[in-house]
Amino acid sequence: MDNRPIGMFDSGVGGLTVYKEIKKAMPNEKIIYLGDTKNFPYGSKSKQSIIDLSKKNIDFLLKQNVKTIVIACGTATSQALEEVQSIYKVPIIGIIQPTIEYIKSKENIKNVGVIATRGTIRSKSWEVNLKSQIEDINVYNKECPLLAPMAEEGWVDNEIAKLTIHEYIKEFPKLDALILGCTHYPLFKKIIEEQMPNTEIINTGEKLASHIKNMIELSTNKEKAQDEIYLTDTECNFINVSYKLLNEKIELKKATI
Amino acid sequence: MDNRPIGMFDSGVGGLTVYKEIKKAMPNEKIIYLGDTKNFPYGSKSKQSIIDLSKKNIDFLLKQNVKTIVIACGTATSQALEEVQSIYKVPIIGIIQPTIEYIKSKENIKNVGVIATRGTIRSKSWEVNLKSQIEDINVYNKECPLLAPMAEEGWVDNEIAKLTIHEYIKEFPKLDALILGCTHYPLFKKIIEEQMPNTEIINTGEKLASHIKNMIELSTNKEKAQDEIYLTDTECNFINVSYKLLNEKIELKKATI
Repeated sequence: MDNRPIGMFDSGVGGLTVYKEIKKAMPNEKIIYLGDTKNFPYGSKSKQSIIDLSKKNIDFLLKQNVKTIVIACGTATSQALEEVQSIYKVPIIGIIQPTIEYIKSKENIKNVGVIATRGTIRSKSWEVNLKSQIEDINVYNKECPLLAPMAEEGWVDNEIAKLTIHEYIKEFPKLDALILGCTHYPLFKKIIEEQMPNTEIINTGEKLASHIKNMIELSTNKEKAQDEIYLTDTECNFINVSYKLLNEKIELKKATI
Repeated sequence: MDNRPIGMFDSGVGGLTVYKEIKKAMPNEKIIYLGDTKNFPYGSKSKQSIIDLSKKNIDFLLKQNVKTIVIACGTATSQALEEVQSIYKVPIIGIIQPTIEYIKSKENIKNVGVIATRGTIRSKSWEVNLKSQIEDINVYNKECPLLAPMAEEGWVDNEIAKLTIHEYIKEFPKLDALILGCTHYPLFKKIIEEQMPNTEIINTGEKLASHIKNMIELSTNKEKAQDEIYLTDTECNFINVSYKLLNEKIELKKATI
């Protein structure tokens, strides 16, 4: 048993989709969430910048005495996970491996699409991990640089979002599964499913939540825990978008990293 | 007479709209353009980050022996112009003042809209400058965080761009003029004009070009000069978008700032 909280970070509101899944799977675990809204978006930053920012985020969370760290950001997972895992002793988990494990377990998934930020796609993290761990898998990638800014703007179900999704997915062949390789993208899950009715849309946060439930020592809390949400810049659309996502108002604290 | 080149910088391709206007006004002047694509977008960065990046860009251009520096970026003009003007001896000009001078000269412009990045709007540079220099002017601001990324993606005349423009301008009252407060936005000028047929759409680059033509010592070149275009990250959509904008292929060089 370990009553310390779970720490998690993202470049903005996107990681809240992961937060939501962890909360659903383990309501009694206390979560400390850090949204680095000051440095949003990570998607088009260099690898070194993303490593530096990830280290600052982790240092902040470690000061809050967390027992494990979740990188709830596709770009930071693909660019910085390996580096920070080699530096810190605390267990650090990213959004890629749990989804790979899931796909491994499903024999019918052979043609996989990945949509993500420019940085994530160019890092080839998804492609390399999928191909090295699963035989005979075909991977189709698409950079979607407008989706994360659009989610931060709160445009997740209007006509503009629908057309933008269409523009990005229109060249995929028939897919068995589509990985939402950026944690913002589950905000668009409904409209993606409408446009790809025969494809399994994979929310990486959901796979991550079931994975860490088996991995960590749970707390002895008997009630739903009160979480803490920190942002590095509070002048942003976080409140509106988080409300859309979680259906509840959340109290935000200012963090300096 | 001064045969040194004109230096200019922007966070990406947006400044090419200014480049185009300067070239039209002074074809024989040699221009050195620096697009800081590695650090794009500036729009959501802190004031201090933008000052630091602007100084690096200026240092790079000064090494190329330029006679004047144009900040072809709305965000850098609003956040860093005053600071860098106080540090460097070379004349530095931003995109705001030439447009203010133009509006001053037009008595019929009383209701002005400004569309720009979040950083530019929140800095209040346009509003403060307009109101302090022109009596009885009404200023209406709108942050448009998706437009610059959309321009970098090359989506400047599709249905998505049209709907996005509509979404951003729909709450303006009747305007005499609309200032395109980010140098990317002239890429959308045609579709904005279609949606606001009775409003003068002001391209700040055009006003800046006529202003510096009167300000600088021109060169003795008798022919159209061969310009140099540098980028801090060449893996981007710059070529596609620049082609759309200038109708010519340009040779790109890599710059380290």
